[in-house]
Amino acid sequence: MEFKEIVEKNRSYRRFDQSRRLDKKTLLDLVDLARKTPSAANRQLLRYVISCSPEIDSRIFETLSWAASLPDWPGPEEGERPAGYIVIVADEDSWDWARVDLGIAAQTILLGAAALGLGGCMLGNVRKERLKGILELEESLAIQLVIALGKPVEEVVLEEVGEGESITYYRSEDRVHHVPKRKLADLVIRICD
Amino acid sequence: MEFKEIVEKNRSYRRFDQSRRLDKKTLLDLVDLARKTPSAANRQLLRYVISCSPEIDSRIFETLSWAASLPDWPGPEEGERPAGYIVIVADEDSWDWARVDLGIAAQTILLGAAALGLGGCMLGNVRKERLKGILELEESLAIQLVIALGKPVEEVVLEEVGEGESITYYRSEDRVHHVPKRKLADLVIRICD
Repeated sequence: MEFKEIVEKNRSYRRFDQSRRLDKKTLLDLVDLARKTPSAANRQLLRYVISCSPEIDSRIFETLSWAASLPDWPGPEEGERPAGYIVIVADEDSWDWARVDLGIAAQTILLGAAALGLGGCMLGNVRKERLKGILELEESLAIQLVIALGKPVEEVVLEEVGEGESITYYRSEDRVHHVPKRKLADLVIRICD
Repeated sequence: MEFKEIVEKNRSYRRFDQSRRLDKKTLLDLVDLARKTPSAANRQLLRYVISCSPEIDSRIFETLSWAASLPDWPGPEEGERPAGYIVIVADEDSWDWARVDLGIAAQTILLGAAALGLGGCMLGNVRKERLKGILELEESLAIQLVIALGKPVEEVVLEEVGEGESITYYRSEDRVHHVPKRKLADLVIRICD
């Protein structure tokens, strides 16, 4: 698959074939990709918890909030829930640049999943103290992001919108998920050539 | 190229064949990859300036600090300087999650460059007000990151290190750049399977 195609396939998926479980090796391989990414000043402050245990997965699920822009949708129903998780943590007193490392690592994991025909979603709205308890994490560590993973069963399409148009994502009656993205010409504010 | 190979080729390169200029289309294609990435709450707060003008490139170069861990190295000499730049900016009062978007976007741009046989480096230590002037940016915008790009002419290798060993990158006498990375087993702090 060409890299551009991987980027295009890598959408934020929130409905999965829950019966297609991920295994430990797949999750570790994805974290190994994140391990090999650049890190600000090479400090490597991020740490990872992986889960492909149905029991722990269902407890992780209970700590997550889904799709703030779809207030009528409580999140995926049983059967369409994630089939594995990678939870990214860091020291509580973490450095500002660790937020950038977080984006680098999470995106690399999700592109790696897309290259395998899988998909996922970064979830930042998490009941963090409860999740720390479930994962039995040390007090000094803070949950940064939960990456939900699985074999997607939903269609997500990008829609180009002009300046001033709504960028709120929405779901059409056929359950297709639409994500408005700004045009390239609106994002590139200056070209020096 | 397999995705894993792209991730491995994507190192932080700081020496380039300056004569192999990047063109506007290549830079726009890389920004278009970033445009298609997930963005926190889909807010899309990042904006981009591209430069492949030798004159503007040399003025951008003057605002950059290189490789804090190599204090004796002032940065690439003439002939090995970047052959193009993508500067990422955002509103000054930007949201915390825009830092995560920044990592997502910058990493996607650099992976896209690696897939083309190019390479680059994220530079955060930038004389930002001076660069804003050079790029004639609106007062409300803040420089987030400069991505230097080109055809790399240096070898960068990852070295696995154990807990407690130094993670400071270094250059050996043959000018190879070594980047110590923690082991997978040290980064994955818990496995629920």
